[in-house]
Amino acid sequence: MVGAGVSQPAGAEVRLKELGIELPAAPTPFGNYVEALQTGNLLFLTGMLPVADHKPKYLGRLGNELDAEAGRDAARTAALSALAAIKAHLGSLDRVTRIVRLGVFMATHGDFFDQPRVADGASELFRDVFGPEGVSTRLVIGVASLPLGMPIELEVIAEVAR
Amino acid sequence: MVGAGVSQPAGAEVRLKELGIELPAAPTPFGNYVEALQTGNLLFLTGMLPVADHKPKYLGRLGNELDAEAGRDAARTAALSALAAIKAHLGSLDRVTRIVRLGVFMATHGDFFDQPRVADGASELFRDVFGPEGVSTRLVIGVASLPLGMPIELEVIAEVAR
Amino acid sequence: MVGAGVSQPAGAEVRLKELGIELPAAPTPFGNYVEALQTGNLLFLTGMLPVADHKPKYLGRLGNELDAEAGRDAARTAALSALAAIKAHLGSLDRVTRIVRLGVFMATHGDFFDQPRVADGASELFRDVFGPEGVSTRLVIGVASLPLGMPIELEVIAEVAR
Repeated sequence: MVGAGVSQPAGAEVRLKELGIELPAAPTPFGNYVEALQTGNLLFLTGMLPVADHKPKYLGRLGNELDAEAGRDAARTAALSALAAIKAHLGSLDRVTRIVRLGVFMATHGDFFDQPRVADGASELFRDVFGPEGVSTRLVIGVASLPLGMPIELEVIAEVAR
Repeated sequence: MVGAGVSQPAGAEVRLKELGIELPAAPTPFGNYVEALQTGNLLFLTGMLPVADHKPKYLGRLGNELDAEAGRDAARTAALSALAAIKAHLGSLDRVTRIVRLGVFMATHGDFFDQPRVADGASELFRDVFGPEGVSTRLVIGVASLPLGMPIELEVIAEVAR
Repeated sequence: MVGAGVSQPAGAEVRLKELGIELPAAPTPFGNYVEALQTGNLLFLTGMLPVADHKPKYLGRLGNELDAEAGRDAARTAALSALAAIKAHLGSLDRVTRIVRLGVFMATHGDFFDQPRVADGASELFRDVFGPEGVSTRLVIGVASLPLGMPIELEVIAEVAR
């Protein structure tokens, strides 16, 4: 069915090229977990972090060391890792029929309430790459800390053509 | 199958009326996301907040500006938004066959440990409206901050008759 | 199909015995929720806490009262409760074909960034008991507070043979 379904987004791979986006290296586990896993036609990802070349691109908390603009780019960076993880697992982004859930967990300090704007850094990338099928349900949560002191972690569940 | 299945809760809509509950306006996205989305027979919702008429009904943290009683009502308010979002997406609450997952994220300050009581504000509404099928698995998590400074955000996954 | 599928992990129950692990009493709800619930072939659990005999085994925050080593054991203790909840719901751990998602929420204080090591306390138990099928996708999140002041709460979604 891949490539033929009416409900399938045409051309995430094509759009990625048109946007001039180069995907980073796919993340690799540094513990007892896998980066992606499919059950039925749902693809679950491990929490995606703002890393580039396996190193943190951002450290710190929003409302403290980092402002909303840095947070937006950190969210976009983590979303790029998510795309790389999806492509590594499925072979092609074109197999994704829908982003179902995007959870944006961000480390915040004090009264930082600009979470939705930060989260849009990830949401906008998915919309640009997948089109309407990239516009998901969303959780946006400010948390106490994230692995290694990074400011963003993304939860992603995607629907995949079988 | 709707209306005929043995495992299907009879009458969420009827129960809602019997309880004298008026649903608020369904939430509308203020970013690049959708409020609800179905994949297979699972309905995912965006994180539901304690808003009424698109305005925050509560602001602040539990254990600081807000006590457990206010938290319970905030959780119930967010759960009413969830019902409105479900109804807007499915047409009728009667299409829900089960609440699968209720995640209650609440902004807490210091040593506030009354999270389960607060979460019951949402759980009890779902039980009252859906009956036994409204009694879900639950995550209860105290977090650093939530969008716009609101005290509660609900994660909801429901099972829907196809 | 149970016991016959190629993709089904052979012998979680056998492995449990070989490892000399005695499961604790299954957790029981202390609110309006259920501990486990199956939809399609996904089994959702309620957030699992580090309890033994229905009492908290650990209280406090990582980076404050508790160090990473205590956190690892708390995560393992919560994972044992998860196994007990799965067994109580399904009758046998052998019906689990895959752990899909493990979310490790941990209460942290200040700059505690050793979250992955703590989370491994749960991941390693699942790997030891379920083999490769126990190696899941993972979310690791440091939060402000958890029910009753416990340091760990696990989110678990498992795939089950129908």
